[in-house]
Amino acid sequence: MLIARVVGSAISTMKEDRLNWLKLLVVREATVDNQLVGKPIVAIDAVGAGEGELVLIAQGSSARQTRQTRDTPVDAVIMAILDSLEVEGKVTFRKA
Amino acid sequence: MLIARVVGSAISTMKEDRLNWLKLLVVREATVDNQLVGKPIVAIDAVGAGEGELVLIAQGSSARQTRQTRDTPVDAVIMAILDSLEVEGKVTFRKA
Amino acid sequence: MLIARVVGSAISTMKEDRLNWLKLLVVREATVDNQLVGKPIVAIDAVGAGEGELVLIAQGSSARQTRQTRDTPVDAVIMAILDSLEVEGKVTFRKA
Amino acid sequence: MLIARVVGSAISTMKEDRLNWLKLLVVREATVDNQLVGKPIVAIDAVGAGEGELVLIAQGSSARQTRQTRDTPVDAVIMAILDSLEVEGKVTFRKA
Amino acid sequence: MLIARVVGSAISTMKEDRLNWLKLLVVREATVDNQLVGKPIVAIDAVGAGEGELVLIAQGSSARQTRQTRDTPVDAVIMAILDSLEVEGKVTFRKA
Repeated sequence: MLIARVVGSAISTMKEDRLNWLKLLVVREATVDNQLVGKPIVAIDAVGAGEGELVLIAQGSSARQTRQTRDTPVDAVIMAILDSLEVEGKVTFRKA
Repeated sequence: MLIARVVGSAISTMKEDRLNWLKLLVVREATVDNQLVGKPIVAIDAVGAGEGELVLIAQGSSARQTRQTRDTPVDAVIMAILDSLEVEGKVTFRKA
Repeated sequence: MLIARVVGSAISTMKEDRLNWLKLLVVREATVDNQLVGKPIVAIDAVGAGEGELVLIAQGSSARQTRQTRDTPVDAVIMAILDSLEVEGKVTFRKA
Repeated sequence: MLIARVVGSAISTMKEDRLNWLKLLVVREATVDNQLVGKPIVAIDAVGAGEGELVLIAQGSSARQTRQTRDTPVDAVIMAILDSLEVEGKVTFRKA
Repeated sequence: MLIARVVGSAISTMKEDRLNWLKLLVVREATVDNQLVGKPIVAIDAVGAGEGELVLIAQGSSARQTRQTRDTPVDAVIMAILDSLEVEGKVTFRKA
């Protein structure tokens, strides 16, 4: 899964029917110490994530394996909000 | 999902049977403020998108999760037309 | 889908049984005005494409959604031969 | 499969229900002689891997083909711990 | 499919149960005239490939469409050994 930070949101009126109740968030890949590195993509929120939070993104068919996204045409889902990351014995991120 | 702008269209007479009623659009990845950055790819239109619109693209098996594309050999679908994008508290895109 | 040009072919005697009747073509990604840009990959031909033609390639599980490729271990299929491409109001490619 | 080294771990309280019993490890792609080259991603551990070990990562829908990950929204799994690698007649890696 | 050369092998004792009888080969992407260009990845051998041979690799869910790999957590399989490649009218590779 990609480590990413929620940086914004998207609004769409004209969309595939099954997307009607899904929240579209703008995310960018981040390093283990929460620096933004990737370009913005849009992911569905399956866990109540808010702007600024560090999250995990599952892509491809795995993005459809949540209650909210099953059988929908989406290829990226936020499936976890990170509390902390530890790399080589050091805590590199801890949620405020 | 990829943020992309519809920039054109493709015509194909010789194609897999199940593609007969699908609209083939040329799209390019775009930034959150609607600047083109990616190379052109072709996506199926599932939401009535027109040239110049900013849209979301679902790729891989998720591209087959719309009424129009089910069981077809396509790996990219336009499944939402964007009204607006907000990043870090600023509206970066609003549909004209 | 990737825009690509058929540039050659591959021959394989030792291969998975279900590939026995499939045609293996070498393709390279191309621009909308038919300039080669990508490195060569091998795709299955599902539409009778010939060398020099500009085609569309579906990748991943979508490559198995044609009559010829169903349930076979292939991850790229030619599913359309392009007649023409139009980008920003200009015809960038027309089949000879 | 990607060759990768386990470099750390992730903790998440708010996550998709089916992820509750899964161990989240931070991994980085590595060369055949165990030099780190890739950026960190998070993978599910299906084989009891520990920090420092060289492992194989399966991505995409294949990440859901283990007992632990079936039907879960995850797109990367550690499915093997490497004992050794041999490239062009030389042992490039042997587990300590 | 990726054109690749078999350059070595991997050994793993601790692995997902269903991988027990599968051969793990190290492969690197190659050009049509058999020059190595890609970084090493590990693929399952479904066709009896040997070191030095030029092969085709299917990735993603398609890697599970062989008798040996069905329902296993693997995302790359060797599904053909190349006899020859022809690009733009020239034979660029012929098996020795």
